[in-house]
Amino acid sequence: MTRNYYSQDIHGPFETCDIGDLELEEDGKIRNLELAYATFGNLSPRRDNAILFPTWYSGSNKILELAYMGAGRALDPTKYFIILVNQIGNGLSSSPHHAPPPFDAARFPAVRIGDDVRAQYKLVTEKLGIDELALVLGGSMGAQQTYEWAVRYPDRVRRAAPIAGTARSTAHNRLLVESFIEAITSDPAFDGGWYGDARRVHRGLRRHARLFGVSGLTESFFNDGAWKALGFSSVDDFVAGFLESHFLSQDPNNLILLASKWKENDASRLARGDLAAALARITARTFVVAIEEDGFFPLENIAAEQKLVPGSELRTVSSAWGHLALFGLDSSYNDQIDAHLKELLSTP
Amino acid sequence: MTRNYYSQDIHGPFETCDIGDLELEEDGKIRNLELAYATFGNLSPRRDNAILFPTWYSGSNKILELAYMGAGRALDPTKYFIILVNQIGNGLSSSPHHAPPPFDAARFPAVRIGDDVRAQYKLVTEKLGIDELALVLGGSMGAQQTYEWAVRYPDRVRRAAPIAGTARSTAHNRLLVESFIEAITSDPAFDGGWYGDARRVHRGLRRHARLFGVSGLTESFFNDGAWKALGFSSVDDFVAGFLESHFLSQDPNNLILLASKWKENDASRLARGDLAAALARITARTFVVAIEEDGFFPLENIAAEQKLVPGSELRTVSSAWGHLALFGLDSSYNDQIDAHLKELLSTP
Repeated sequence: MTRNYYSQDIHGPFETCDIGDLELEEDGKIRNLELAYATFGNLSPRRDNAILFPTWYSGSNKILELAYMGAGRALDPTKYFIILVNQIGNGLSSSPHHAPPPFDAARFPAVRIGDDVRAQYKLVTEKLGIDELALVLGGSMGAQQTYEWAVRYPDRVRRAAPIAGTARSTAHNRLLVESFIEAITSDPAFDGGWYGDARRVHRGLRRHARLFGVSGLTESFFNDGAWKALGFSSVDDFVAGFLESHFLSQDPNNLILLASKWKENDASRLARGDLAAALARITARTFVVAIEEDGFFPLENIAAEQKLVPGSELRTVSSAWGHLALFGLDSSYNDQIDAHLKELLSTP
Repeated sequence: MTRNYYSQDIHGPFETCDIGDLELEEDGKIRNLELAYATFGNLSPRRDNAILFPTWYSGSNKILELAYMGAGRALDPTKYFIILVNQIGNGLSSSPHHAPPPFDAARFPAVRIGDDVRAQYKLVTEKLGIDELALVLGGSMGAQQTYEWAVRYPDRVRRAAPIAGTARSTAHNRLLVESFIEAITSDPAFDGGWYGDARRVHRGLRRHARLFGVSGLTESFFNDGAWKALGFSSVDDFVAGFLESHFLSQDPNNLILLASKWKENDASRLARGDLAAALARITARTFVVAIEEDGFFPLENIAAEQKLVPGSELRTVSSAWGHLALFGLDSSYNDQIDAHLKELLSTP
């Protein structure tokens, strides 16, 4: 089940790049780190049309492709060279579920957003030969990586669009993510991460999926029966058929690695804990995008950070899908986000 | 631990009233149902100054007393005869944790909000000899009972103030409450409700407490460090010292009984599922009160129901405590709620 999910069949075609050994921020290293990525379109002769789009929690390059790319859309592969890069631990890039022992499963080292961005930097500059990215964007944990890029490598990022995410996890957000982690680890079948067959942990994965839906969606979504448009027959049918389905195929240790990275995200590390100083380093033309109904990353927190980004603009979108609008299943959200991204891409 | 918590020492003084056998809405009955309640002040000669205030989820008469009553406040025992009544299953009224076998613990029958209100009706009319209540009010599950009173016994309720709760649980609210239940039942020590010593289920109770805090409090509460005013030294210290502490002394089966009642709450049962028809029965002068930041019962849902209550007014209050402002630890919330209740009580 897990093996089948993290495959070229489902998420391909994607390529992998051996980044070499990556010394980690916290402790230890990943040997021969592999980043999985997919590219679309062609790099211009001046190499100035590259867009980097890292994945969110539980996302993959394929999910980003289906939700955000296409001719006529903001991310148009006939105009741009688009790199969809998978986070460390998402199951396609190096991850607990397929790492060789002894650094496998529960023993996979702790990874931080900064580790991802340093690895992606190698991919972009050394492997792909790109000096400056026309745009870095991402939703949720993708926004975390976007901020990290813009703060860490300001001269490599011409434009930035962190969407529905923050540069530093708030105390409330950390509690929320802890509840996701705990929903899985509390399943006795999890066995400290040594479950062997991920399917045994299905109770924890289902519980996690429901919690994810409770905060990730909105009252309106349920009140208005928005799930009907997806062909579900009842709320329960939607909860199992959409939410549980999305997570049941994934590996518990992978999800926990990602969630821990989310929880510990803090771009202020790059300025000794001073968030204002960190964000002041950003030189990219930045649209900070918030989903008004977002239960994971409320507008107020996103707006507070946006004020610290020089020359940035706060752009809002609205969707009954709340945070999960990121999935791209609300066409109105897609139109709103495309309008903002097109405008950002049209700036010098 | 559980035995000590549900005691006169902690929640008293309270009295109990034997309601007799109560046939339940769903199935079965409770033999010699006992309602625990506390009264304050004196009934006027015309018996027209009685206020009924049922408890919320995990609440008790003592918690209501400390948070809402006092000379000069809206609920002033020098003016009113105030009845604080404990819900069935809250540990003071008949409850799973102290019911005699075979209807004890996990085998305690399912209770609905309508069962509580029918039992309270007996207490109020037969035991206390009150024909009409000057006010029925309650927060959260107390609001559910308030709606049930006003719809079921319109000629017995002169004024009503449902606060931070709805007449019918929404789909989203049901999912949220399921997550609370599941946080407890997923603890292997819960053992289908046959845990014996409630302290063994502390992991589930702690998990439940954290989930409760994640949705019940707000971003601002954490961002502004509102917990500092309570003497806590960190977010973790607050989470354990306040949230976990509140639930750790309580009985898992009791909490699950209450949560199930919350989830299944539906005053429209009284009009064959037609919520508009049910709420149209209300003749009480009604202030429907919403907490603007409420993550359990969002303003939009409360406002939608208020429109269905004849002659009612929507009143809003604001607090960084979100839903948990009900606890009365935010003095600004207390002032706001008192102003609304005083105005309501001053109407004819």
